[in-house]
Amino acid sequence: MKKSPINEQQRRQQIMDAFIVHVVEKGFHKASMADVAKTAELSVGQIYRYFAHKENIIRAVVEHKTEEYMEMMEDFLEKRNWLARVFEQKHSEEFRIERILNMEIKAEANRSPALAEIQANADRRLTEHAVNIVRQRYALNDEADIQARVRFLVALTDGLFHRSADYAEPFSEPSHRLFEHMLNELFPDE
Amino acid sequence: MKKSPINEQQRRQQIMDAFIVHVVEKGFHKASMADVAKTAELSVGQIYRYFAHKENIIRAVVEHKTEEYMEMMEDFLEKRNWLARVFEQKHSEEFRIERILNMEIKAEANRSPALAEIQANADRRLTEHAVNIVRQRYALNDEADIQARVRFLVALTDGLFHRSADYAEPFSEPSHRLFEHMLNELFPDE
Repeated sequence: MKKSPINEQQRRQQIMDAFIVHVVEKGFHKASMADVAKTAELSVGQIYRYFAHKENIIRAVVEHKTEEYMEMMEDFLEKRNWLARVFEQKHSEEFRIERILNMEIKAEANRSPALAEIQANADRRLTEHAVNIVRQRYALNDEADIQARVRFLVALTDGLFHRSADYAEPFSEPSHRLFEHMLNELFPDE
Repeated sequence: MKKSPINEQQRRQQIMDAFIVHVVEKGFHKASMADVAKTAELSVGQIYRYFAHKENIIRAVVEHKTEEYMEMMEDFLEKRNWLARVFEQKHSEEFRIERILNMEIKAEANRSPALAEIQANADRRLTEHAVNIVRQRYALNDEADIQARVRFLVALTDGLFHRSADYAEPFSEPSHRLFEHMLNELFPDE
């Protein structure tokens, strides 16, 4: 059977995946277009046809991750057991890569206005999406209050996400109980 | 009047300060010992007398910051208005530098076991200190529950710390009310 030809979107994804591998391994600065080309099994010229600059790859990666997070968030906020799921997956290799990638982008965003803008847009989209879900689902009316609650949730999950490497053991039963209690305070049912 | 001679501790502090300047400006990797020497107005040889390796400077910086955070934490947990204070100072230049430095160290810790160890030790000391304060001050008995509550607080403040660049406006009145409510749930008075 012949392999079907790779389309443009698949090619872009292949480059993004290769880029992530190198950022996680060496850091943002040391991940060169030549490395990415080698891992993606393309020429540097081909890479530039899809992405003229490293920042364009980052932009595509962040947009792609943001779509994923938005779907996850919907799922989580509906099922209410989302924190348990965050805890369960936190040791997976995929999660480790996401965490390192995210940190590299945020650290670099401190020096690059272009990256800061990409990150701020992604954060804004995620927050707006969360506000929409919370507004529809929970017994909350005041708009500023809803925004405050989402902001609290975002800070908490961000903190958990970035610190998860520190936690050698899984979350204890009292931790699960506490988080459930606090989340019910944060998003009360009708 | 003659300037009094600089003692060893002051010299070390001078080197640490110069190192922070360069890490914040260029990132951990690009901050060279030569840069640090130039900013600290010392020779590279003198720098090596105090710190044999970049990682030794980071270790000293993290230890110094940890002492500071431990004092702040005590103050905050006693006065209960600590989050308001975090919000108030979040636009200051000093806070911006702390945030970038912290992110650089954490990003690098993903690849350097030595840095990961330094960071993990600092986190452990801070968490233990917080657990001691909470155990003494609040109406909580169960040890695992206290640990869970401190873990929640640490994740929340970490998330706020790292995301504070996103917040163009200061925290709203509903945000302050919500955080106060949530913190009273977290650390109930007798």
